[in-house]
Amino acid sequence: MLTYDLTKTHGPMYDALYRAIRADILGGTLAPGTKLPSKRALAEHLKISKVTVETAYNQLLAEGYLYSREKVGYFVEAVTGGVIPTAQPLSPAPEPRQEDWAADLTSNLLPEKAFPFSVWAKLMREVMLDYGQELLRPVPICGATVLRQAIAGYLHDFRSMSVSPEQILVGAGADFLYNLLIQLLGHDRVYAVEDPGYSKIRRVYEAAGVTCRAVPLDGDGVIPDSLTGANVVHLSPSHHFPTGIVTPIGRRQALISWAQAAEGRYIIEDDYDSEFRLAGRPIPTMQSIDHSGRVIYLNSFTKSIAPSIRISYAVLPPELMGQFREKLGFYACTVPSFEQYTLARFLSRGYFEKHLSRMKKYYREQRDTLIAALETAAFRDSIEILEQDAGLHFLLRVSTHRSDEELKALCARAGIRVNCLSDHCLRPRESDRHCLVVAYSGFDTKKAPSLIKRLEELLSFSP
Amino acid sequence: MLTYDLTKTHGPMYDALYRAIRADILGGTLAPGTKLPSKRALAEHLKISKVTVETAYNQLLAEGYLYSREKVGYFVEAVTGGVIPTAQPLSPAPEPRQEDWAADLTSNLLPEKAFPFSVWAKLMREVMLDYGQELLRPVPICGATVLRQAIAGYLHDFRSMSVSPEQILVGAGADFLYNLLIQLLGHDRVYAVEDPGYSKIRRVYEAAGVTCRAVPLDGDGVIPDSLTGANVVHLSPSHHFPTGIVTPIGRRQALISWAQAAEGRYIIEDDYDSEFRLAGRPIPTMQSIDHSGRVIYLNSFTKSIAPSIRISYAVLPPELMGQFREKLGFYACTVPSFEQYTLARFLSRGYFEKHLSRMKKYYREQRDTLIAALETAAFRDSIEILEQDAGLHFLLRVSTHRSDEELKALCARAGIRVNCLSDHCLRPRESDRHCLVVAYSGFDTKKAPSLIKRLEELLSFSP
Repeated sequence: MLTYDLTKTHGPMYDALYRAIRADILGGTLAPGTKLPSKRALAEHLKISKVTVETAYNQLLAEGYLYSREKVGYFVEAVTGGVIPTAQPLSPAPEPRQEDWAADLTSNLLPEKAFPFSVWAKLMREVMLDYGQELLRPVPICGATVLRQAIAGYLHDFRSMSVSPEQILVGAGADFLYNLLIQLLGHDRVYAVEDPGYSKIRRVYEAAGVTCRAVPLDGDGVIPDSLTGANVVHLSPSHHFPTGIVTPIGRRQALISWAQAAEGRYIIEDDYDSEFRLAGRPIPTMQSIDHSGRVIYLNSFTKSIAPSIRISYAVLPPELMGQFREKLGFYACTVPSFEQYTLARFLSRGYFEKHLSRMKKYYREQRDTLIAALETAAFRDSIEILEQDAGLHFLLRVSTHRSDEELKALCARAGIRVNCLSDHCLRPRESDRHCLVVAYSGFDTKKAPSLIKRLEELLSFSP
Repeated sequence: MLTYDLTKTHGPMYDALYRAIRADILGGTLAPGTKLPSKRALAEHLKISKVTVETAYNQLLAEGYLYSREKVGYFVEAVTGGVIPTAQPLSPAPEPRQEDWAADLTSNLLPEKAFPFSVWAKLMREVMLDYGQELLRPVPICGATVLRQAIAGYLHDFRSMSVSPEQILVGAGADFLYNLLIQLLGHDRVYAVEDPGYSKIRRVYEAAGVTCRAVPLDGDGVIPDSLTGANVVHLSPSHHFPTGIVTPIGRRQALISWAQAAEGRYIIEDDYDSEFRLAGRPIPTMQSIDHSGRVIYLNSFTKSIAPSIRISYAVLPPELMGQFREKLGFYACTVPSFEQYTLARFLSRGYFEKHLSRMKKYYREQRDTLIAALETAAFRDSIEILEQDAGLHFLLRVSTHRSDEELKALCARAGIRVNCLSDHCLRPRESDRHCLVVAYSGFDTKKAPSLIKRLEELLSFSP
């Protein structure tokens, strides 16, 4: 008869018995086919209750260590040996290390104090009270209706776009939406991306396993003639990263004509930071001048509100939205209802508008402070500032014989973290070299004098 | 000289002038190459300020309707004609229609009152206060550290899994994680899914553009021999949907041996509703008996907390997590920090555990009420209940000569919404027919007598 000492165990008795028998089966002490004692017999033998034995046997049965034959009893299943690993104490996860730079010109973190957190928190509390249990219900796959209405209203009032909330698809970040669009448009398509460009976009296409072709730009953006063989082109016409190019209306029309010239051609218009055009009105979108349903518009609140708010959206042409619902409508919406309802109120009550105009003022000051400091520096004759009133960075061309790698290494040694234009090029041309990309949105302008001093030493020492 | 009546416009004057000139360019009145009047001349002519003209010209310049030649003036760009669409009033989005069934046996919505919303709301308020501005910072790509620690702790205490928080990847829903896993494991792999099975999983693989093969099951789950040619198999061994099969330890070991037998083979263990095993202890996971780094574990809080909480997670073998960081580390985490911090507290303070045990009690009562009603019904001899103490549904086999389509149509006419086992099969076998899938988690048991009465009429009328 099976004999175990169950007195020295902690936890429930049935669990100790279950573990003891399991160990014997895995260790080979109980060979496959062995008949186990009846529940009553084992209970009497071990001086435990019959229910305890029954619970242990049932668990072993459920997990497949035993099998039962009706009115005969329980038998050991054929199980290959092996030790069940015991849980080990968990090693603590290391906290991500924050690097300390004298000047970080690569960060695009929003300055925290700039965000109206108290308003956001007030709306969160309101949404909790007003929606209550409703927050637990799933939202429609394309996003909560109130949020899609608020986005359509915003696009109408501030981007002069006339779109129905039904054309809007809300998702957890732009990366996710890029992936959905690939699934919608097809894995057999050829996707063109800008070179130079935001390298993450190319990486998303490559990770999705589609053919991705980097196409060159001229001063107006992507050249339609370079799109031979491509079916879809991913553009940022209102403000190209990192060159700042604003694609003019003529080129926009030429690109739309390219899309119209063959079946299945589409333009993905990535409008990711158009809110931060610092002079004049926002540039009208390609979506708003397209009558042929060939432009998919994309934007995100990650940059304009906070990186932890993972809400992006796409505006699909009605025909494509129909295909989306049919082909990919089985997906669930990826954004929690709570964030969606909060953002809807933030938009529809005008807080977003106020926030943007405050941020634009802030960024304008950031930019002006930094440019003024550069333009009065001792090295002012060996630099050139390329700035387009758009986005949250400018280009700083440096007269130097050094390579971009050397330039960055020198900067790093001086405590300045910066990227070069060539870092964003797949095939850098000569004109793409010696150009620093100065992202100023997260830069602490109090550090400007120290930055200039460091650059001065660095540039005067060996141009 | 250009002459426009700007008195009847609303909005800023520069905007009216900008629109008027743009319309003339698009309409052809101003031909390409035409030189525009100087800013001062036009301002005097129209009796408006020079700044107004300058603002309008700059906007037209930025958008590419004009070009300037230094010290000469502004010229009309070559732009193809076309009307800029004016924004139209937005049509309201139709609210999703709720269908009214006498009995809906397909819904898996959690009963709202079952969720401890007041606790959740309390934690949300706490998180808002404690984290404040910190909520705006991006979280690490694999998820907030506190949440990954809390999940590791939960898996340790309740699933006997010894995993480091560093192995955990948090994402906005299981669909999203399936897609990430495909990108990690490769688009050139062959993915096997269960038939019958949860059809959404197959659809995700197909939408991602990979080869997906449906493999048959026997009474123990997926048969290793059926996996010839596959590299990855997606399983739900602890509770298969919809059959309820619990894969026994012997078969689990055989499947792990299959994975070990060749390079690059992986098992995706989808443990999506293991929390709701209604009798005995949860079945140990395949992840916990695998020593070879071939099992990827997946689970979700969508089913166990609420469908609007879009938080799922994967546990990757350490080697694979290294590859993930290298290959896909450029992605941003898709879950808002706020939800992550709230869930971390819900887990680490024991609320989740309490919630689960209350839910299990609730579901057990739901199931028992429904089964008792069926077993005492007049038609009890023409049905068979197949139940495995697991998941939130059971199978109801009906003695009938009718096809499943007829059966469902009859039910629908009687106000009963129900799916058949064959709906979840790609290639239904004879034994897969005449089986209703009774999902009871969202069923209002007060409707049980009425359901029985309707079934009675339906079954007695014509078996």
